[in-house]
Amino acid sequence: MRTIYILPGPLSRTAKGTPEVERRGLFLRDFAAPDNEVDIRDVPYGPASIESAYEEYISVAPTAALMLEAEEEGYDAAILGCFGDPGLDAMREVCTRMLVVGPAEASCYGSLMLGDHLGIITVTSSVVRPIRDLVGRLGIASKLAGIAVVETPVLELYDRERSLERAVAAGQGLIEHHGANVLTLGCMTMAFLDLGVELQERLGVPVLNPVRAALGTAEGLVRSGVHHSKLAYPRPPKLAATDGSTIADLLLT
Amino acid sequence: MRTIYILPGPLSRTAKGTPEVERRGLFLRDFAAPDNEVDIRDVPYGPASIESAYEEYISVAPTAALMLEAEEEGYDAAILGCFGDPGLDAMREVCTRMLVVGPAEASCYGSLMLGDHLGIITVTSSVVRPIRDLVGRLGIASKLAGIAVVETPVLELYDRERSLERAVAAGQGLIEHHGANVLTLGCMTMAFLDLGVELQERLGVPVLNPVRAALGTAEGLVRSGVHHSKLAYPRPPKLAATDGSTIADLLLT
Amino acid sequence: MRTIYILPGPLSRTAKGTPEVERRGLFLRDFAAPDNEVDIRDVPYGPASIESAYEEYISVAPTAALMLEAEEEGYDAAILGCFGDPGLDAMREVCTRMLVVGPAEASCYGSLMLGDHLGIITVTSSVVRPIRDLVGRLGIASKLAGIAVVETPVLELYDRERSLERAVAAGQGLIEHHGANVLTLGCMTMAFLDLGVELQERLGVPVLNPVRAALGTAEGLVRSGVHHSKLAYPRPPKLAATDGSTIADLLLT
Amino acid sequence: MRTIYILPGPLSRTAKGTPEVERRGLFLRDFAAPDNEVDIRDVPYGPASIESAYEEYISVAPTAALMLEAEEEGYDAAILGCFGDPGLDAMREVCTRMLVVGPAEASCYGSLMLGDHLGIITVTSSVVRPIRDLVGRLGIASKLAGIAVVETPVLELYDRERSLERAVAAGQGLIEHHGANVLTLGCMTMAFLDLGVELQERLGVPVLNPVRAALGTAEGLVRSGVHHSKLAYPRPPKLAATDGSTIADLLLT
Amino acid sequence: MRTIYILPGPLSRTAKGTPEVERRGLFLRDFAAPDNEVDIRDVPYGPASIESAYEEYISVAPTAALMLEAEEEGYDAAILGCFGDPGLDAMREVCTRMLVVGPAEASCYGSLMLGDHLGIITVTSSVVRPIRDLVGRLGIASKLAGIAVVETPVLELYDRERSLERAVAAGQGLIEHHGANVLTLGCMTMAFLDLGVELQERLGVPVLNPVRAALGTAEGLVRSGVHHSKLAYPRPPKLAATDGSTIADLLLT
Amino acid sequence: MRTIYILPGPLSRTAKGTPEVERRGLFLRDFAAPDNEVDIRDVPYGPASIESAYEEYISVAPTAALMLEAEEEGYDAAILGCFGDPGLDAMREVCTRMLVVGPAEASCYGSLMLGDHLGIITVTSSVVRPIRDLVGRLGIASKLAGIAVVETPVLELYDRERSLERAVAAGQGLIEHHGANVLTLGCMTMAFLDLGVELQERLGVPVLNPVRAALGTAEGLVRSGVHHSKLAYPRPPKLAATDGSTIADLLLT
Repeated sequence: MRTIYILPGPLSRTAKGTPEVERRGLFLRDFAAPDNEVDIRDVPYGPASIESAYEEYISVAPTAALMLEAEEEGYDAAILGCFGDPGLDAMREVCTRMLVVGPAEASCYGSLMLGDHLGIITVTSSVVRPIRDLVGRLGIASKLAGIAVVETPVLELYDRERSLERAVAAGQGLIEHHGANVLTLGCMTMAFLDLGVELQERLGVPVLNPVRAALGTAEGLVRSGVHHSKLAYPRPPKLAATDGSTIADLLLT
Repeated sequence: MRTIYILPGPLSRTAKGTPEVERRGLFLRDFAAPDNEVDIRDVPYGPASIESAYEEYISVAPTAALMLEAEEEGYDAAILGCFGDPGLDAMREVCTRMLVVGPAEASCYGSLMLGDHLGIITVTSSVVRPIRDLVGRLGIASKLAGIAVVETPVLELYDRERSLERAVAAGQGLIEHHGANVLTLGCMTMAFLDLGVELQERLGVPVLNPVRAALGTAEGLVRSGVHHSKLAYPRPPKLAATDGSTIADLLLT
Repeated sequence: MRTIYILPGPLSRTAKGTPEVERRGLFLRDFAAPDNEVDIRDVPYGPASIESAYEEYISVAPTAALMLEAEEEGYDAAILGCFGDPGLDAMREVCTRMLVVGPAEASCYGSLMLGDHLGIITVTSSVVRPIRDLVGRLGIASKLAGIAVVETPVLELYDRERSLERAVAAGQGLIEHHGANVLTLGCMTMAFLDLGVELQERLGVPVLNPVRAALGTAEGLVRSGVHHSKLAYPRPPKLAATDGSTIADLLLT
Repeated sequence: MRTIYILPGPLSRTAKGTPEVERRGLFLRDFAAPDNEVDIRDVPYGPASIESAYEEYISVAPTAALMLEAEEEGYDAAILGCFGDPGLDAMREVCTRMLVVGPAEASCYGSLMLGDHLGIITVTSSVVRPIRDLVGRLGIASKLAGIAVVETPVLELYDRERSLERAVAAGQGLIEHHGANVLTLGCMTMAFLDLGVELQERLGVPVLNPVRAALGTAEGLVRSGVHHSKLAYPRPPKLAATDGSTIADLLLT
Repeated sequence: MRTIYILPGPLSRTAKGTPEVERRGLFLRDFAAPDNEVDIRDVPYGPASIESAYEEYISVAPTAALMLEAEEEGYDAAILGCFGDPGLDAMREVCTRMLVVGPAEASCYGSLMLGDHLGIITVTSSVVRPIRDLVGRLGIASKLAGIAVVETPVLELYDRERSLERAVAAGQGLIEHHGANVLTLGCMTMAFLDLGVELQERLGVPVLNPVRAALGTAEGLVRSGVHHSKLAYPRPPKLAATDGSTIADLLLT
Repeated sequence: MRTIYILPGPLSRTAKGTPEVERRGLFLRDFAAPDNEVDIRDVPYGPASIESAYEEYISVAPTAALMLEAEEEGYDAAILGCFGDPGLDAMREVCTRMLVVGPAEASCYGSLMLGDHLGIITVTSSVVRPIRDLVGRLGIASKLAGIAVVETPVLELYDRERSLERAVAAGQGLIEHHGANVLTLGCMTMAFLDLGVELQERLGVPVLNPVRAALGTAEGLVRSGVHHSKLAYPRPPKLAATDGSTIADLLLT
């Protein structure tokens, strides 16, 4: 089985650069099933990081292009590497065979198999409403205890100690004041810092890591022999109608 | 009061071209309040038409740029000219003063002041799931009777007779089998063909035109002296943090 | 276009009297569209003010009678002048052509186009449950952050300074403790005191005035050429069945 | 224990007259607990029958007055004799000690202890939306299979054979097409015709009679030693504030 | 009418023993209707008390057996004596004629006829999630203010003073911080201590006792001449298919 | 990683016997990850098959005992082998370290990552209500298109041809009349017949097999390093309080 983790921002071109992309690749391979070959790739252009709905949207076009490339290369599944699952439905519209997994989807549903009232710890208040909308779209708004923030821009999260302390405080608030009995990290940079391990020790509730949840979901669905529903995510009509046209043709430049 | 209707696709560059853009401008001015100066403008690049979630997403970047231009030019309100309200939250994130109205939002809420069980007539089955998600995001899923389609690509809707007959059939189904007691057109091209007038005569229920609903909403909110909530739609942090940076800077090209 | 604002209590016969009715008339005309002639009229008998469900109900008969008069006089729309929208469905049952707009309906839906979590500031705790029921009936209970009160009887609200300070406190509580990101005034006397302007300055979130929201909604729907759904609000069968009978005949006195 | 059944229309003054009132009194006594003395009384003025929201509202004032009389006379509970539960919250606001039971409330909740998907059989399509709103207010919209009508005005229901046949057809539709597994009669005149007995024999599902359900609820709650919550249904402030004022004073005539 | 109260744990074999069973029998007879003969019986084996989902489940088999015995003996109704309503649906599957009433069901629905925002006071945090699930299954999650605990094991509740004080504190929290306007006791041992009487005096809101609510519901439904829906609760197919087989045969031992 | 599949009925003692248990073991191993050692075991006593809520409940005690044994033997995860997930919460209460996966939970959430409107194909109408309750408990009732049955007792499902044809018909109904765009098999015997492969070919939508979904979920969660929340599923208090007591002690026999 071959899985690709697609970063919807050009991480290799930021300060953290290629080493961070490679570090993430190792992290993925560490937690993947032994028969799951995992690759990682970032988009050639896109947002430096995603901290707003606007940045989510502008990541879709380059990410979808990369998804299609990956599908052509024979990957069985792709993980859309941002907790906002930006453009997840669009990825499923344009792909026909390759599974596309959203880490938020995988982690929210997965968490509800560990507890029944979910708290999400994320980066900045600017993504709270988008995540709340996402949870609503999954149909599980009644299971959401709350969303708390470390109020740290994505690019400053790498100060791991500080991020961890803030995440502990955010998690405590969710448990004590909002009744959360299971947590998930609502940001992939936080997930790749693997804060969950310490968090669950200190907070006494399970903390699901969306990277790992997405890997497990991808592996499980691929083994299940299923593809996305084309009734739910039909191919864009202009692509379906025209022979040989590609998603690039959908944009009059 | 000055309102701009922004087409998230480059309509002037398609077969219908500038005359259709101008015809729509006249239609808008016909139904606007006397003190509302309405302009229309299309994006320089973008999807030829929007019939999928993918096309919705790729319309966001050029549309947001045009929104910011319009805000700078002093418009009081902008109407985001697609029934999918693509990127509506992003428009509200990047704008600070100008109101941005989504025709779907305006028309769905408006319809529920005419009846209490809403049917939506739209173009193709490829937009049914996105519209269902949108209605859910508005919080009114329990008021949705159903979504029916004329199954005609946007660019072929201009055969008005055929479109009308198909819309009548779609509407009848919604009323008789799904209990709809009010309808709205779920596509702006259908709206600019003004199919609602004949539809409501033939079907006996009100049919709200999203163009007109959006105009009325824009006018009402501008007169109310309100702006979008920056608690709900905060400025993208990187813009807020950096002096002089623009949304163009959010994209590493 | 002609709109009438109908006060469901005999305001002209209370201490505030005709001058207050006239002042409200001026307020309405100030915010109406230039082509909207707005009149105001109060019922000849009814509750002095509406602070309970009971008072809502007893306002319905005289208000409906005045609605029918207004319809006969050719008004295009009527605004039912109480935030409880008392008997709104009954007004739509008995009227056949004239639009009837409820300020609560207009303001709640309108607010959700500015933010996505609504706080309502109203007069006394005695109307909290009725307003909660009303919001539920609109289908948007999941978007309600909360309802806070200034705990001041309607007739004492005219001490504007005191009312404003209490409203600021109520609004702050809704924002800080309940996550409201948009507010509306939940009482028409508060609305005619135009507290919203200062409130939004001091609280930093939009505050929609239900008077203005209702005006905008009335204007928008009239321009849209729609009427209420008679499938949703059928004429009372005894009226429909009997030639020439009126709503007065529905009451055996 | 003493219970009063209050008819919110002046039944004794209609064609059916006092004999029908007395017949209903006997019916009530037949099904009451042995220690429950049940009286019946109709309002002196009000709607001839209730087939619309408008008629519901205009029944509230005379009914509330009768409720207060009954409370003063020492009744432990009152049943508000219309399936629309018109003004039920207002009755609870003005009464302080006497329980007020709504037959719809009692019958809908009661039915959900027999099955989990409720079908309601009522008179005319003009009351379908009001009943749907009522069920929503009870919080159990997700348990409503549907509402079907015999489309017979209240005053013509007395042709028992015809009413029964139409009710059978309505019930069959609810079971076969909407998944109802328990039914209730949604009209008190149908309830006093006791159609449920034959209906449940012919349809094979329980059919709860709202008269009996209301009696049982009244008896159960009285025996439980509880009164309505004055936090939920506070006394109208003007009554609470003023010594000796009555609900009559709330109406400026 | 004959009603049996079935204890799903072998209370007579615990420290409190037969005297407590008899005391509960007297309590039941005190509050029953005069024509309702109430008996009480405990299961021969089962959990000593029910403070977890696990204990709920293991109570089902002996309780169902006792239910069937009671049905054979001609009881009209049985009350399933635990607030968790453990196996209520199973009881209704195996019984064909006798009504089975769940105290939680009866008390939750009954409470919502006294107020519209319910607080539940129960024993230990270990039953909070099961009760929350139960309330959700009743369809009234939107009416639940919260569940608070006295954090006292069932078998230590008999220190009545201490239990009462803790219940007062729990109730106050529900009212002041969660907006409850009606309460119920969420544990049958608390109910048989009749804490509600003092609670409602001290807290100022109605407190429904589930023992009494269940009795009233049983009486009301028996008088209504209804049985459980066999469409909702069909007989286990193997019983229905095989002549003479019993529920004992469903267990391969 | 070691996973155990626990059959909550004594399959080895039925007509199909040990060979069927072994066949299922092979099936599990076929679809498991290469590093996942999967064993299968059935309970020594319990229901022959589970086709009712009653049979679900009586399976809990022997299954929980087997779960605890497995936990002691060092299994990382257990799959509770019935689509009703009978007693899933109880298993999580009594276990402290081993993950317990419910196939319904895993398959319903998993399906919603393939489509957004789920249809469930199950055995007999007697399990429809229990499955509907289960879906509600997962919080995703709004995503349920419907539940359709092949109306074949579990023990007769082995006529694979007939079962497949009936499942195709059931699935078609769900897609065409109820809008399902993804399906799951709602019965583990159907799942071990692997009907999904042919079903998805013939119906054109993904059909998730709950055996495979449960395996994937178990593997994913184990790799994620998480355990169930003891805040959500606390240990039964009597076990937690008493040193050395076991679940057997919870039952007074």
